[in-house]
Formats: sequence, C-alpha cells, structure tokens
Amino acid sequence: MSDAPIRRLAIFGVGLIGGSLALALRKAGFVGEIVGCSRRASHLREAVELGVIDRYSLDAAEAVSGADVVFVAVPLGAMRQVFEAMRPGLDPDAIITDGGSAKQCVVDDARAAFGRIPPGFVPGHPIAGTEKSGVAAAFPELYANRRVILTPVEETAPEAVARVRAMWQAAGAEVEEMEVHHHDEVLAATSHLPHMLAFGLVDSLARLRDNDEIFRYAAGGFRDFTRIASSDPVMWRDICIHNRDAILEMTARYQADLNEMMQAIEQGDGETLLEIFSRAKAARDRFCND
Amino acid sequence: MSDAPIRRLAIFGVGLIGGSLALALRKAGFVGEIVGCSRRASHLREAVELGVIDRYSLDAAEAVSGADVVFVAVPLGAMRQVFEAMRPGLDPDAIITDGGSAKQCVVDDARAAFGRIPPGFVPGHPIAGTEKSGVAAAFPELYANRRVILTPVEETAPEAVARVRAMWQAAGAEVEEMEVHHHDEVLAATSHLPHMLAFGLVDSLARLRDNDEIFRYAAGGFRDFTRIASSDPVMWRDICIHNRDAILEMTARYQADLNEMMQAIEQGDGETLLEIFSRAKAARDRFCND
Repeated sequence: MSDAPIRRLAIFGVGLIGGSLALALRKAGFVGEIVGCSRRASHLREAVELGVIDRYSLDAAEAVSGADVVFVAVPLGAMRQVFEAMRPGLDPDAIITDGGSAKQCVVDDARAAFGRIPPGFVPGHPIAGTEKSGVAAAFPELYANRRVILTPVEETAPEAVARVRAMWQAAGAEVEEMEVHHHDEVLAATSHLPHMLAFGLVDSLARLRDNDEIFRYAAGGFRDFTRIASSDPVMWRDICIHNRDAILEMTARYQADLNEMMQAIEQGDGETLLEIFSRAKAARDRFCND
Repeated sequence: MSDAPIRRLAIFGVGLIGGSLALALRKAGFVGEIVGCSRRASHLREAVELGVIDRYSLDAAEAVSGADVVFVAVPLGAMRQVFEAMRPGLDPDAIITDGGSAKQCVVDDARAAFGRIPPGFVPGHPIAGTEKSGVAAAFPELYANRRVILTPVEETAPEAVARVRAMWQAAGAEVEEMEVHHHDEVLAATSHLPHMLAFGLVDSLARLRDNDEIFRYAAGGFRDFTRIASSDPVMWRDICIHNRDAILEMTARYQADLNEMMQAIEQGDGETLLEIFSRAKAARDRFCND
C-alpha cells in the first residue's frame, strides 16, 4: 500500500487536463496508483503507454473502487452521467473533485446524480490549458504557477477542501476559493467570451469568398488573437450550454460596447476612439506583462 | 558617394516600422546614408544614438533633399501633411513609398498633396509589426519572411515598383502586389477587425465593477487574445478613420454571425454551436500552424 498523500487516484477523462494532473502528482510523489476511466479504451491504452496512468477500467464504478480521490475531467455535458455511473463503486469517504470550466452546472449535476452533495465533493477549476487537447498533449508543468479556483458549497466538508487544495499545490498551482455564481461570471468574462469572439471571427472569415487569400495575409497579431479558436469544439459547445446565462449577459454588454465603437468610427469621432483604445491599452499593459 | 542600391534613404517616422527597415537595409548593405525626419527631435536623437539613422532634420524638405528613396512610416492621419511638407525638397526622380495600414487614403493624400500621383509613388504596406512601438523596439529581422503588399496605381512607374520591391526583398520580405481597394478589404478582415474586437474586449472588461479581480483570472488564452490591444492607440484611431467603410462592413458581418451564435446559445442549440466551432477550428488549424 502506498503511503503517498493520495493512495489511489481515479481520473475520468485522461486528456490534457486529467493527464497533466496525473503527471504532476506522480512527479511530486503525491500519488500511489492512478486509475483511468473514459469511454474509449484506445485513449486509455495510450495513457498507459505514455506512463500517465497505471491501469484503466471502462467501468466507472470499478474505476473508483478503493480510490481515495476522484478527479473528473470530462466535458461539462458528460459530468452527470459520469457521477451516476461511478456512484455504486464510490468509497463513502472519497474526495470527488472536477476540472469543469463552469461550476453551477457541475454542482447541479452532482446533486442530481448523488441525491445530495456528498461532503467530499469539491467543485474545482484549474485556470490552465492550451488550445491542444488529448493525453499526448499532457505535461507535468501545465499547472505550475497557474491558478486553481475551488468553489466549495455549503455541504462540502472543510477537510475535503483542504485535501484538494493540497493536491493542486503539489501540482504547482496557486489555489483560491470563490463562490460558485461569481466563478461563472468571472470565467464568462475572461475565458468564455474571448473564445466566442475568436471562434466567431475565424468562422466569419472562413465563410467569406476568397477566404484562402484572406488567411494568407493574416499576420502575427491574427495568429495570437485566433489561437484559442483551435480549442476543442465539444468542450466549448458544452461550456456554452452550461454557462449560458453568464455568457449571454457578458456578450450583450460587449456587443453594446462594440456598437458604440462602430458608431464612433462611422461618425469619424477620433476623440472617442482614442479614448477607448488608450483605456484598453492601459488596462492590458497593467494586467498582462507580455 | 555610396554605391549601395539606395544612396540616400529618407525615413519619416523613425519608430518600429521605419526603424526596423533602416536596420535591415543597413545590415544588408543596401543603403548608403539614412536621414530621419519626424516632429520630435528627442525621438530622432535616440534613433541616431541607437545607430538606426545617420542624421536627422526636423524640416521635411531638407530631409528629402538628395534622397533617392523616401519611406513614410507615420500614422495615416499625418500622411498628407508629411507629403505636403516634403514636396519643395523632393528630387523629381525620387521614389516615394509608405507603410500605411490602409491604402486608398494614402493614395488620396498623395494626389492631394502633390497635385497628381508622381510616377515614383508606390503605396505599400508591410504586414509586420508587434504590439510594441517606438524606435527602441526596432530590430533588423522584423520583416524577415513577412509579406509586404504593394498597391501601385495607374500612374505608378513599373521601375519604381521594381526598386521598392528590391528594397523590401533586401530586408527579407516577400513582396506581392494587390489592387488598392482589395488591400483595404483584406486588411479590414485580417487585421483591423481583430484589433477592434481585442480593444473592445479589454475596454469592456476594464469598465466592469471588480475589474481588478477579473483580470487576475485571465489565463494564457486571454493574454494571447488581447495582446494586440496593447497596440498604439493613435495609429489605430487613424486606421479606423481612414479605412472606415471596409471596417464597418466587416464588423457588421461579424456582428451578424456573433448574433447567430448567441441565438444558438440562448436556444441551447448544441448542434449549431458544434458546427460553428468545428468549422472555425478546422480553418484555424489549416491556415495557421501554431
């Protein structure tokens, strides 16, 4: 039996997020055995071959059997089904946490699947990831110095939060706590809306006549701007469906601001444009030093 | 007297764009003497100290005197005034080219300032630059393997185009020709619209309550997406004013597409969202390999 802080970790969805956590915890000596579970055996075999997990099961209840910590890193649309499937095999003291990009929906899914929020349930969200996906893209440093937001609810036991916090810290992350609803609003603003805008721009241009030529003239700024449009479409469909209200609200606010800018362009109002661009540059330069 | 292909090059606006061309041509042995001109002596003194230009004049006519090539790299809003000011000193055989991000307005300004388009006038646009500006940011490799678009008009002499083409090739760029109006449309799509969206997003978030907190959770994707919002506000004000119609048209098209996407989110239409995101990802992955 391992004497690592986590004896057996079960990971659902062994892709970039789940796989990188596995690699980081293994490197830190924080975990004994890692068991993978997903719908596709081919992915899991690849994860075993890459040394990311020790073994796998296609049966969720079997995968969580004897696990003291369970990490669920599947698209938001699959959360509830995964919770339901693992339920029969769960140790009553098991810690269950996740990596979903929206949190209210995960809390709702857990409540529906388990009949209540188990005290070991700690909703979480690592603010990390790249536009790549899949276990082959996983690497142990993904979470180094990145933020992880935990959004414990009333029913969550403080000891469970402490264990999940320690796990993420072992992976190199800075852990913070936030209220569920507030998390969903902040992420709609800083992540979900930008992804919508980038997907929208690339799709808008791809639908133009002569789009081949147009993309040829796309320079560095365009590449940076649209990099997030290479992200996983299924994951983003699920985020849109599951964080709908916050995304719609932020986007409406953004569109109103964009309309103001277009009105200034239409009227040749250089003063307003200079004001908007200067304020944006100052904010960007202040908050991001690259 | 230098026997370099360009004996004396006059540069108006010795910042990132003008300064990098100077450094590249000097490195390639393509230019004899480089004379700088701008409104501020402090910038020009810095450019001399950095070895970017040999000498400077605050008088435009004096700066172009004896120059066989003149490169104008000032914000679009300053083009006409610069053309007018240099006119008395121009050699009748001088080549005049520019680096403006929109071309119809530069052609109009040249026609107004010179009374006609001089045969040596070659409108141009290097598709290069970073979100940095100023001569201290200039470097000789800025144009290496980047595209430069020349948009000669009816009055432009083919020999002038050939000389400007050779100049940019000496700086490492790939040179292409395009019709003026088409250039302005393509750039509105690939550069001007993305900048508007990035400036708009950062400004929108900066105007939210708790914006300090919001920016703290901005991860890598947000940084990439908003990097272009650090660009020079004056330059972008001028681009908006001078490429107004193409920008308004592209943005209206984009807003219609974004509205469609929001409608799909509102209706929980996962199929449409998956279609949009998949199409965008495929286009991004096809055209940009990073």
